[in-house]
Amino acid sequence: MSTESSVELKLQDHLAPVLELLQKQQIVESLTQRQEQVDNNALVENLVHRQHEVALRRKLTQLQAADLAHLLEMLPMDQRTLVWQLVDEKRAARTLAELNDAALSSLIRVTPQERLMQILPLIDLDDLPELADFIPDDLLAAVKTGLEAQERQWLEQTLQYPEDRVGNLMSREALQISGAATVDEAIKYVQQCQSIPEQTDKLFIVEGKRTLTGVVPLSALLRHEGRQKLSEVMDSDVVRFQPEEEAESAAYAFERYDLISAPVVDDRNRILGRLTVETMMDYLRESQESLALANQGLSARADLFAPVWHNARNRWFWLGLNLVTAFIATRFIALFESTIENLVALATLMPIVASIGGNTGHQTATLMIRSLSLDQIQRSNLPVAFAKELGVSLINGIIWGTVMGCLAALFYQNIQLGLVMLVAVLLNLVLAAIFGLLTPLTVDRLGKDPAMGTSVILTFVTDSMGFFLFLGLATLWL
Amino acid sequence: MSTESSVELKLQDHLAPVLELLQKQQIVESLTQRQEQVDNNALVENLVHRQHEVALRRKLTQLQAADLAHLLEMLPMDQRTLVWQLVDEKRAARTLAELNDAALSSLIRVTPQERLMQILPLIDLDDLPELADFIPDDLLAAVKTGLEAQERQWLEQTLQYPEDRVGNLMSREALQISGAATVDEAIKYVQQCQSIPEQTDKLFIVEGKRTLTGVVPLSALLRHEGRQKLSEVMDSDVVRFQPEEEAESAAYAFERYDLISAPVVDDRNRILGRLTVETMMDYLRESQESLALANQGLSARADLFAPVWHNARNRWFWLGLNLVTAFIATRFIALFESTIENLVALATLMPIVASIGGNTGHQTATLMIRSLSLDQIQRSNLPVAFAKELGVSLINGIIWGTVMGCLAALFYQNIQLGLVMLVAVLLNLVLAAIFGLLTPLTVDRLGKDPAMGTSVILTFVTDSMGFFLFLGLATLWL
Repeated sequence: MSTESSVELKLQDHLAPVLELLQKQQIVESLTQRQEQVDNNALVENLVHRQHEVALRRKLTQLQAADLAHLLEMLPMDQRTLVWQLVDEKRAARTLAELNDAALSSLIRVTPQERLMQILPLIDLDDLPELADFIPDDLLAAVKTGLEAQERQWLEQTLQYPEDRVGNLMSREALQISGAATVDEAIKYVQQCQSIPEQTDKLFIVEGKRTLTGVVPLSALLRHEGRQKLSEVMDSDVVRFQPEEEAESAAYAFERYDLISAPVVDDRNRILGRLTVETMMDYLRESQESLALANQGLSARADLFAPVWHNARNRWFWLGLNLVTAFIATRFIALFESTIENLVALATLMPIVASIGGNTGHQTATLMIRSLSLDQIQRSNLPVAFAKELGVSLINGIIWGTVMGCLAALFYQNIQLGLVMLVAVLLNLVLAAIFGLLTPLTVDRLGKDPAMGTSVILTFVTDSMGFFLFLGLATLWL
Repeated sequence: MSTESSVELKLQDHLAPVLELLQKQQIVESLTQRQEQVDNNALVENLVHRQHEVALRRKLTQLQAADLAHLLEMLPMDQRTLVWQLVDEKRAARTLAELNDAALSSLIRVTPQERLMQILPLIDLDDLPELADFIPDDLLAAVKTGLEAQERQWLEQTLQYPEDRVGNLMSREALQISGAATVDEAIKYVQQCQSIPEQTDKLFIVEGKRTLTGVVPLSALLRHEGRQKLSEVMDSDVVRFQPEEEAESAAYAFERYDLISAPVVDDRNRILGRLTVETMMDYLRESQESLALANQGLSARADLFAPVWHNARNRWFWLGLNLVTAFIATRFIALFESTIENLVALATLMPIVASIGGNTGHQTATLMIRSLSLDQIQRSNLPVAFAKELGVSLINGIIWGTVMGCLAALFYQNIQLGLVMLVAVLLNLVLAAIFGLLTPLTVDRLGKDPAMGTSVILTFVTDSMGFFLFLGLATLWL
């Protein structure tokens, strides 16, 4: 692989010298700190320090905004702040829009108010809505006052929509032209635009001021007779979105119909803005990431490099919740302490029943979550899915229950104990399959992402029931 | 929300009548089956059946390939087969490329060989590599013989690369033109192309036969003087890929640099093919899905609607693995059975220690997996991450260990038991943090996805150690 033609390598090539300089910088800094007393030395170090700073600053200007954001994300807090200070306001504005939530919130926290007030007005208006949550209210208000009336109106309109709606993600600029114009006129229009918005693959064709009637791909402009009217060459079967729609379903539509850009319209079909595949791809990635984190009770602002105390508190709710569910689950054990006293082998074997239940439940839930998120579950096919999963859990319960039952009987020379094991495993697998389907389904019906919280609930059910079934059967039969 | 302007609704509108027809169809079919004896009745039913079939076939032709694929994915096996039979070969070929792995493998299994041999040659050459794994070897060979020499060579070249490499995902067609041509000549070239490949946003500029020197966006063709040479207006800082590169890092590059299409070149910079944002988005989605499934020991071909027996076997490896780890973890309990006999409360409390450890470990691992997949972990910042996570686990261990210790001491009126609880929770949290970082890191260093298998290993460690620490300390101190 030659170095110059690989993006990954290119990025590494850019970042490696920066990281190296940062390490030198840090050594210098720790030296200067230690030697504050020795004035002569400090003077020398200070010079060295400046030299590195110049080299570092030069390296940083060579990075694209997206790469700079990536660099900032991978730095520990002190170095992150150092690099951030060296970036000029214009590039800082572009970089903010590329940062992940964790790095973004940490950097906004450490940026002095005056500098922030220089950076914020330079942010692209299209990027402001997704950053708004992170900007202190007074500063956001100041930014708004700085905008032209039309821009301010647009910003306030998009901020109305929550983060997971199309309206929050749309961008303002779109090439629009009347269907009465000819192909030649459209080409002239494109030529005269001051700048073409990113990811423009088509013109939106409008009637009157902004009523959408169709689209014409840029490539079609090149391939039609110059005198033809746009209304004759346009495609009028347009995939369009409304601002209240869920961003996730819009992203799926982009995937399904291989879109690059698409119009956002109001309920009278007037163009409000434009969605691009770039925004949709970013949205999908970010929402999947925050879901993975949320499933472990972590906020999207969590970060391996955040301050310890901040990070510890971030996890309290989840740890507390886990302790409560674990505590309740083990109360089922406490019910049977006298049974355990009689046969202590039960204490050894019971976690196996709980564990295999949790496992099966998570398998079923994962399949269910996928089907739900792909919109494959309907009232008509749900009973089929239920029947199939019950069948699977019965088969596997009989097979693996028998295996574990034999092992338990052999290990403890106790055939009844083996029978208890078999029946407990079988019943817990069936319960796990039922809850594995029901939990994501219920969460989904409540309007949340079906993966959200499923793990906690499932683990709680399969643990409690694993302990209860196994110890309960043992009390009855042994 | 008006019906016509929402994609989601549009899709539902299309699919709902089809689902309804299918239900009628099924009722008719079950009737005909039951009444096979009564010939007169059967004749009538047969007519009704045909009527529905016509209606169904008409509805199906109105669906786009992507929507048809979606419909097939959500149908139980019998209806899936029924619909599939009604689709003509040409649309079937386009639909295959849009199906997920589970539906794809099930449909290829049920399609008669002759029909498959009619469908396969109609598949777009660019889609064949990702379908190849699912096509029986003899049929694939037959398809290859049917290709022109150049096409066959291209197919064999892309099939060389594994699924997760750029070479497997690139498409063949790209608009290429010499840098010596003028803008006007380029426009003429675009006009004369028989068809423009999907997602073409730029021309690739070549020197000699196919050496890449730059790119010119289509919109730039419209905006430059017709007499200018392409080599003067082109952008020569091109993000390009090599066929051996990992598809995942290419997908990140598409995201980072907001690409729509990009050239794939060999190590002498000669154009081999083209990547598009559509392919990259599909790849990302599919690889994330199969990872989520793989983490529960499920294959990407698993499906809630697959036959029960097939599905049950699919899960055996995972259930077996889980039983083995659970069995070994509980052997740590067996070591201390005599301690438990003396104080049966230990059996009740021990799952709490294991559970809170598993929880913390998964939190740390999730953050680590995110950082690894975003390429944020370097030798230089790893120690920082370690130190921070250890700090977090110490703080949380002391706080929640104390809470649980107090609860245990109160519940069982035993202060020493509380102390054992505190220390066991604290130590298990620290171990969980260490293994939460080390496990994904090790898996990543082994060249696998860091999320792969992390959950099994972590649960095993935190369970075993939770039992061992708690019961071991109890044996020493009580």
